[in-house]
Amino acid sequence: LRHSHPTKLYLALLHHPVKNKAGEQITAAITSIDLHDIARLAKTYGVVGFYVVTPLIDQQELAGKIVGHWTDGAGATYNPDRKEALSLIYIRDDLEQVLAEIRHREGAEARIVATSASNGRRPLGYRGFRKALDAADQPYLLVFGTAWGLTPDFMEKADFMLEPIKGNTGYNHLSVRSAASIILDRLLGQRE
Amino acid sequence: LRHSHPTKLYLALLHHPVKNKAGEQITAAITSIDLHDIARLAKTYGVVGFYVVTPLIDQQELAGKIVGHWTDGAGATYNPDRKEALSLIYIRDDLEQVLAEIRHREGAEARIVATSASNGRRPLGYRGFRKALDAADQPYLLVFGTAWGLTPDFMEKADFMLEPIKGNTGYNHLSVRSAASIILDRLLGQRE
Repeated sequence: LRHSHPTKLYLALLHHPVKNKAGEQITAAITSIDLHDIARLAKTYGVVGFYVVTPLIDQQELAGKIVGHWTDGAGATYNPDRKEALSLIYIRDDLEQVLAEIRHREGAEARIVATSASNGRRPLGYRGFRKALDAADQPYLLVFGTAWGLTPDFMEKADFMLEPIKGNTGYNHLSVRSAASIILDRLLGQRE
Repeated sequence: LRHSHPTKLYLALLHHPVKNKAGEQITAAITSIDLHDIARLAKTYGVVGFYVVTPLIDQQELAGKIVGHWTDGAGATYNPDRKEALSLIYIRDDLEQVLAEIRHREGAEARIVATSASNGRRPLGYRGFRKALDAADQPYLLVFGTAWGLTPDFMEKADFMLEPIKGNTGYNHLSVRSAASIILDRLLGQRE
């Protein structure tokens, strides 16, 4: 295994503030498949915690029911592998809560790395981020936006913008599930 | 862009024959999100065609409705990017149909590369597969199984078994959407 020490990488999936198709700031609904796919991914790549962030109480309850079914309910017995993955999920109101928890756990402030399909200021490449994670001297919070992605305001406040994924065409409209998968593999996957 | 010539890579998502949790051979239901996520992925990485394979007529009709909504229906106007991606989808009965179409189009027999979370016979590594795709002297059909994955019988008949994805933990229970995303990026993504 590549990492002799655990990574200090955390994920956050933001449902607010994110953009709709028109670029307006909205709160997106929880999507069950995002929670499952990204939790399984996080478990596979040794991510410390996967924060699902929404300020809406009913959406927090929905996310809680999904997670609870697989961690405590019938799903936990049916599929213990899924339980392991979904146990990484923490449902929180906003990023401030998330950052406070990481600070408490790690004794250090997390650097926020925002993701986008477009280039931004303070770009961070995959090789540089890999090195930083290998060094593990500081926690990182990698943030994904649902719907049409993170808002410009949010990205402005992030410490870094991860370089967008380029395939080998001009098209780059990946789902957040696909983007998270590719990014985690680039950052933490074993290289041949 | 990395490829000066187009790749000769095709994808197939099999709904039959695949395994259920008990390892029995079943026909899995179409999952809308698989079609969307993998079509967007295929478009991003320049895959020639994405075959959705099921022998069930009602499931073919369901897949056809999903694709039609985004390629000819209201979705095509609402989201032209999605139309571009879903236009890569071909719904077919079985792998024989798929192979015959590729043969007709390419004038050569496609090599079948099966995917699995476990190791198998005739393993193919990512570096070797990248080289073969770069050479582009032969079409390749990369096959993913839905539900609990491709059957041992199917894998026995494939030309190659792609090496399973290892994260950096012992856990590797990824969704087919995540696995396809990681594999396409490893095979065709631009490397730093």
